[in-house]
Amino acid sequence: MFERTPEVKVLRDPVHGYIHVDLRVVWDVINSSWFQRLRRIRQLGGAYMVYHCAEHTRFSHSLGVYEIVRRMVTEVEDIREALSEREKVTVMLAALLHDCGHGPYSHALESVTGVSHEVFTCRIIEEDTEITRILERCAPGLAKETADVIRHTCKNPLMTQLISSQLDADRMDYLLRDAYFTGTKYGVFDLERILRTLRVNGDKGLIIKKSGVFAVEYYIMARYHMYWQVYYHPVARSYEGIIHLLFRRLKETNAEQPLLKGIMDGGNMDLDTFFRMDEYTCSCAFDMLADSDDGILRDLALRIRDRKLFKYTDSDPETDQRIRTQLAQAGYDLKYYWFRDTVAQNPYTPYTVRKDNAIWVRMEDGSVREISEASNIVYSLIHGPANDDHKIFFPEIGG
Amino acid sequence: MFERTPEVKVLRDPVHGYIHVDLRVVWDVINSSWFQRLRRIRQLGGAYMVYHCAEHTRFSHSLGVYEIVRRMVTEVEDIREALSEREKVTVMLAALLHDCGHGPYSHALESVTGVSHEVFTCRIIEEDTEITRILERCAPGLAKETADVIRHTCKNPLMTQLISSQLDADRMDYLLRDAYFTGTKYGVFDLERILRTLRVNGDKGLIIKKSGVFAVEYYIMARYHMYWQVYYHPVARSYEGIIHLLFRRLKETNAEQPLLKGIMDGGNMDLDTFFRMDEYTCSCAFDMLADSDDGILRDLALRIRDRKLFKYTDSDPETDQRIRTQLAQAGYDLKYYWFRDTVAQNPYTPYTVRKDNAIWVRMEDGSVREISEASNIVYSLIHGPANDDHKIFFPEIGG
Amino acid sequence: MFERTPEVKVLRDPVHGYIHVDLRVVWDVINSSWFQRLRRIRQLGGAYMVYHCAEHTRFSHSLGVYEIVRRMVTEVEDIREALSEREKVTVMLAALLHDCGHGPYSHALESVTGVSHEVFTCRIIEEDTEITRILERCAPGLAKETADVIRHTCKNPLMTQLISSQLDADRMDYLLRDAYFTGTKYGVFDLERILRTLRVNGDKGLIIKKSGVFAVEYYIMARYHMYWQVYYHPVARSYEGIIHLLFRRLKETNAEQPLLKGIMDGGNMDLDTFFRMDEYTCSCAFDMLADSDDGILRDLALRIRDRKLFKYTDSDPETDQRIRTQLAQAGYDLKYYWFRDTVAQNPYTPYTVRKDNAIWVRMEDGSVREISEASNIVYSLIHGPANDDHKIFFPEIGG
Amino acid sequence: MFERTPEVKVLRDPVHGYIHVDLRVVWDVINSSWFQRLRRIRQLGGAYMVYHCAEHTRFSHSLGVYEIVRRMVTEVEDIREALSEREKVTVMLAALLHDCGHGPYSHALESVTGVSHEVFTCRIIEEDTEITRILERCAPGLAKETADVIRHTCKNPLMTQLISSQLDADRMDYLLRDAYFTGTKYGVFDLERILRTLRVNGDKGLIIKKSGVFAVEYYIMARYHMYWQVYYHPVARSYEGIIHLLFRRLKETNAEQPLLKGIMDGGNMDLDTFFRMDEYTCSCAFDMLADSDDGILRDLALRIRDRKLFKYTDSDPETDQRIRTQLAQAGYDLKYYWFRDTVAQNPYTPYTVRKDNAIWVRMEDGSVREISEASNIVYSLIHGPANDDHKIFFPEIGG
Repeated sequence: MFERTPEVKVLRDPVHGYIHVDLRVVWDVINSSWFQRLRRIRQLGGAYMVYHCAEHTRFSHSLGVYEIVRRMVTEVEDIREALSEREKVTVMLAALLHDCGHGPYSHALESVTGVSHEVFTCRIIEEDTEITRILERCAPGLAKETADVIRHTCKNPLMTQLISSQLDADRMDYLLRDAYFTGTKYGVFDLERILRTLRVNGDKGLIIKKSGVFAVEYYIMARYHMYWQVYYHPVARSYEGIIHLLFRRLKETNAEQPLLKGIMDGGNMDLDTFFRMDEYTCSCAFDMLADSDDGILRDLALRIRDRKLFKYTDSDPETDQRIRTQLAQAGYDLKYYWFRDTVAQNPYTPYTVRKDNAIWVRMEDGSVREISEASNIVYSLIHGPANDDHKIFFPEIGG
Repeated sequence: MFERTPEVKVLRDPVHGYIHVDLRVVWDVINSSWFQRLRRIRQLGGAYMVYHCAEHTRFSHSLGVYEIVRRMVTEVEDIREALSEREKVTVMLAALLHDCGHGPYSHALESVTGVSHEVFTCRIIEEDTEITRILERCAPGLAKETADVIRHTCKNPLMTQLISSQLDADRMDYLLRDAYFTGTKYGVFDLERILRTLRVNGDKGLIIKKSGVFAVEYYIMARYHMYWQVYYHPVARSYEGIIHLLFRRLKETNAEQPLLKGIMDGGNMDLDTFFRMDEYTCSCAFDMLADSDDGILRDLALRIRDRKLFKYTDSDPETDQRIRTQLAQAGYDLKYYWFRDTVAQNPYTPYTVRKDNAIWVRMEDGSVREISEASNIVYSLIHGPANDDHKIFFPEIGG
Repeated sequence: MFERTPEVKVLRDPVHGYIHVDLRVVWDVINSSWFQRLRRIRQLGGAYMVYHCAEHTRFSHSLGVYEIVRRMVTEVEDIREALSEREKVTVMLAALLHDCGHGPYSHALESVTGVSHEVFTCRIIEEDTEITRILERCAPGLAKETADVIRHTCKNPLMTQLISSQLDADRMDYLLRDAYFTGTKYGVFDLERILRTLRVNGDKGLIIKKSGVFAVEYYIMARYHMYWQVYYHPVARSYEGIIHLLFRRLKETNAEQPLLKGIMDGGNMDLDTFFRMDEYTCSCAFDMLADSDDGILRDLALRIRDRKLFKYTDSDPETDQRIRTQLAQAGYDLKYYWFRDTVAQNPYTPYTVRKDNAIWVRMEDGSVREISEASNIVYSLIHGPANDDHKIFFPEIGG
Repeated sequence: MFERTPEVKVLRDPVHGYIHVDLRVVWDVINSSWFQRLRRIRQLGGAYMVYHCAEHTRFSHSLGVYEIVRRMVTEVEDIREALSEREKVTVMLAALLHDCGHGPYSHALESVTGVSHEVFTCRIIEEDTEITRILERCAPGLAKETADVIRHTCKNPLMTQLISSQLDADRMDYLLRDAYFTGTKYGVFDLERILRTLRVNGDKGLIIKKSGVFAVEYYIMARYHMYWQVYYHPVARSYEGIIHLLFRRLKETNAEQPLLKGIMDGGNMDLDTFFRMDEYTCSCAFDMLADSDDGILRDLALRIRDRKLFKYTDSDPETDQRIRTQLAQAGYDLKYYWFRDTVAQNPYTPYTVRKDNAIWVRMEDGSVREISEASNIVYSLIHGPANDDHKIFFPEIGG
């Protein structure tokens, strides 16, 4: 039996009402310096440059994913019965820790270091940190088991499905949370209904009852709209792109900036260096770079700090060429003052494309079908044209 | 100039915050007995048999449609400039009155009388009722002009579009309102965004700016889901179907039931008889029919009053035949104890199908496209398979 | 063991999310004609004449009280342990049925019949109705035990406290529900917090932990404001007062109106007559009375139906006399065309005034104090001046 | 005439729906580096250590206060008529900028520098910064006029009342906003009702109509509860207290920490140094101090970073002495490892105590009374006992 806290701890959360904690190991992880560090990494890269209230962090999101998984393993009868006590604790810990390897401005950082955040997440769990010690003190082997869920090497695929699939607690929390903090209404879907209609099927693992299909359709649409309205907003992409350019300039000039030395280390970064690289350190570093001798670093740093972002327009060969020429004539180094960014998003990726990760539905007659076969809406969406968006970003010339 | 109320009157409304009234004629219409009558006609036929809080009436919906139109003609610059003062007052009155010809259990009633509620709406406005007198006292000719908006014979098609098109104040209010009172999250969409992106185009009338397309996609999905989750819920259809059967039985047996004599009169019903037929009178009549000598009337009345509804199952020739045989053997008169009901719903009906009533979008380059050409989502939905549902309804045999 | 339903039934409710039912007896009560009758009695007498969306009924309120009690007996550890299985079922049934003896326009009706609705509630539960049979079939003796909770004769006072005290499920539901449907923000308080801090104390029964005092303060203020803003709104009192006058006129003239014959019977009314008297029957009767030979009945009936209510002003001897004189001169019968109404409301009634019904708090040191000793806010409110409102109501003279 | 933006700019805000900007000068201020800096100062000192989602910043609050003032000067007829165009623009700018002089962890900072944030606010507006230049370019003299509103030296006291009184836009926004982001329900009040009932009275300036008294009572209670539940939460005070101790240690040891050199400068700080001191710089400095040679600095910095806060208990002479002795015996320097903190909050401060800043009510008869004379609730609250809370904070001994 896993040790309980003396009484149930509750943390007020506007999305879920309360986060409930009654496991000692969960409480200890939350109070660890590694988990508290997530208060210094925002959830939404550049989106808060558009939606000014979207200042929430991976700390609250991680608690939210944990809470949804906690509800799944206690309130959904099929899951409660399919998992052992140890598996339940493990998957709750995996939910809590699934994002702990995120660095500041994750996408920009990953693209210069070439290392995915999952790698750091698993290192933080297994590489003898405070987290590792908390998990191992609770139950020997727990650290590896938790990391296994996150890196999809867990023996019981159901556990991974709960936190990483097309209908997982991670997405469920971020849609609701990002909708709440941006103030859009796009990410709201019916979590209660989905939880009530989740089932476990021997073959497929997590499935949904037919009576939950409408709620899943709504969830798929919510996700689709959040991508286009929030995550892919061009202002957010402009902000993230400039951070990427600054990181790249730092790396290529091998600039002396101790707060950002992890960028040079890349995949070899030690965890202590990684720990200290958060968005507060970065912001502070950008502020220091505003005094840099390197004009490009100085300019990019000021753009980030003071929100003097790049403009954007739809990309096509002719426009791209025209803008590039103008920039070059105005003396801009195109390596750091121009980028092209393409985003695309399918509402749902069907089984035919990605075998391991579909949403399955149990029909009234007991048969199991993929959601795109059970929902005309999803069928239509995956057979219709895909949305994509190609844009170029560049400074206002003369601006 | 139209007479104003001494100060702005506000009515608290959970959907819109407040309903604002500052026109004397609007205030007088609201206080008329014909408008107060709408407090006795529920908004959602049988859906409150499933969603127990959906007890709201056409009174609050009518106020809500008025409020949205009021905002359209005052807050949307293009509309404000496109309409004269008189046209604005007229379309607000049309919004307020567009449902005043609804009788009790409207669909059931219309199917036995063969008269659409729009006919009664226009009669109430034009046929020398209290409403007619209020309108004519305000401005001679106003009654006919208001009715013209409702029956689509208005010279300025923009006015009709505001209250009757695929993107009109009527739908906007009922989606938000029905979602609020059912407690579902399906009908919620971003009204503010839509209002902010409405424009008027010489040719098409009401159009939407490109930046409002996401909000319209969401609205289309909201409507689609409300149909399937609420309006077409089989329990609601079962309730409405039984009321239809009772009305039919009444008519065919020429039963003596003074409260429902309007049913016999059908299209010839005088307005005084119509006025008195509301859901309170009907409920009272059903209660009296629970003592009828006619066993079928008695049984159907009790089923309605005490919510002993028909069961339902998917229709197919074999099932239908089997059930019908069982019912006949159990002694049920199939004319009153069996019905088949088909519902279908397209998320959006494109221009190619219905020329006068499409949603148009002004693209960033100024061109105008139909929503299905401007939105991959809508394109996919209208080219994918349509949802329909065929069910049969019948009493539990032995139940 | 009490029989369960094959699966948990859920009813969508905008206030609580879902109402959960897993007891067969609860499900059967909900589906009985007596409980379905509550769909025909509105929750808020005349308040929907002011707040037009407050059209909700005692049906949804009764489900809401049941749901809160269900949560109390399953989620609050102290209560779960203090009650036997049978006591839990009993108190849930008492919650569901506590309002089933309400007639139409309850206050007006009670004042002419002289019989409280609790009397009818207990008769409906115990007097061999469909309800009685459902309860007794479930467990012999259950009907009387359920009624005992409602009439405060239950051996375990904790059970009564859950549904009838100054901090009970009845008030908790109606504040939240009435706030939701009126659209005011006044009735919203933190139900989750109160549920989380409820405890059972040997001596006092239900108490609240110190950490819940703020939530209780808010609840007390919410109730206070709902009284003044909604329940005591003069327009609502005007409407209810006229209904009372009409009932009185009916009784005093011994008028022939079969739908309202229960009013003549008063306390001797049989349950079948009572069953049929609901707000639909009344509304229908008012409509018929609009053709009455009695001018007073006719006028009052039209005032109710068409919302031509009495005016009101603050009462003082001089004003009262002046208005009465004017009315008499204008030919009004003062017995039916003038009334005085006083309302008063204390935010909280302390133990010193009403010994059996206080709110108790467990302090951090384990001692128990009354809320007015544990909260400066409540202390101040009960020692400050009380709010009251004296108004007279009368027809507009010449109007 | 003041220059307008080409079209109305809207910023999505979950509290107000949208922030509307149509003045060029407002848009320029928002886009200035000084205003963008507010994204790096959180709104709620230590409260996000308790309410983990309360991570919002003074940036969004400042926009919110601006939006409420914008609505006041455009939607409230009396205010619209009482102010000239220039006064309206000035008060909107004062609303936007009223918090721009806040440094990181404002209370802790002010207590070591001895300078109030208002001083910095006025310096930033008037001392030739980017802000000054934007204001003066718009209209010569505007900078001083804006600062005058903030420092209460404005000729028209109504302008100051809008942003700084007991019923001002500042409080209205922070209550709603802090309630939203903490997820408590305590701060919600009826902003629409208050705006609708605001009036201007020659003598008193801003007053409220009698029909708005309930909304003001609710607002006063909301504020009171937010203080006790959120702002005065002991965990928040523990966090802020430790930051204060660290700042004091830094100052007293004259430690070398360039990021925090402003602390040494205190009131002499130049604005460039001030600009760079934000919560990101501080966080970064704390992280660096985690390697300090000074054990006290190192320990306090780690406590802040990793949320290893001081415990707390109610203060009384005996307890205080006992704890101090234990701490001294355990080797703690009491100067940095013990503090006592008292908070007190009256729901409302009456006119008798603070003449310049009361809430006045226009009664139905046209007379004007103070809110405590017009509301029994407010009267009771100010005559009842005051809430206060005395606590001592100290490290867990052996912890």
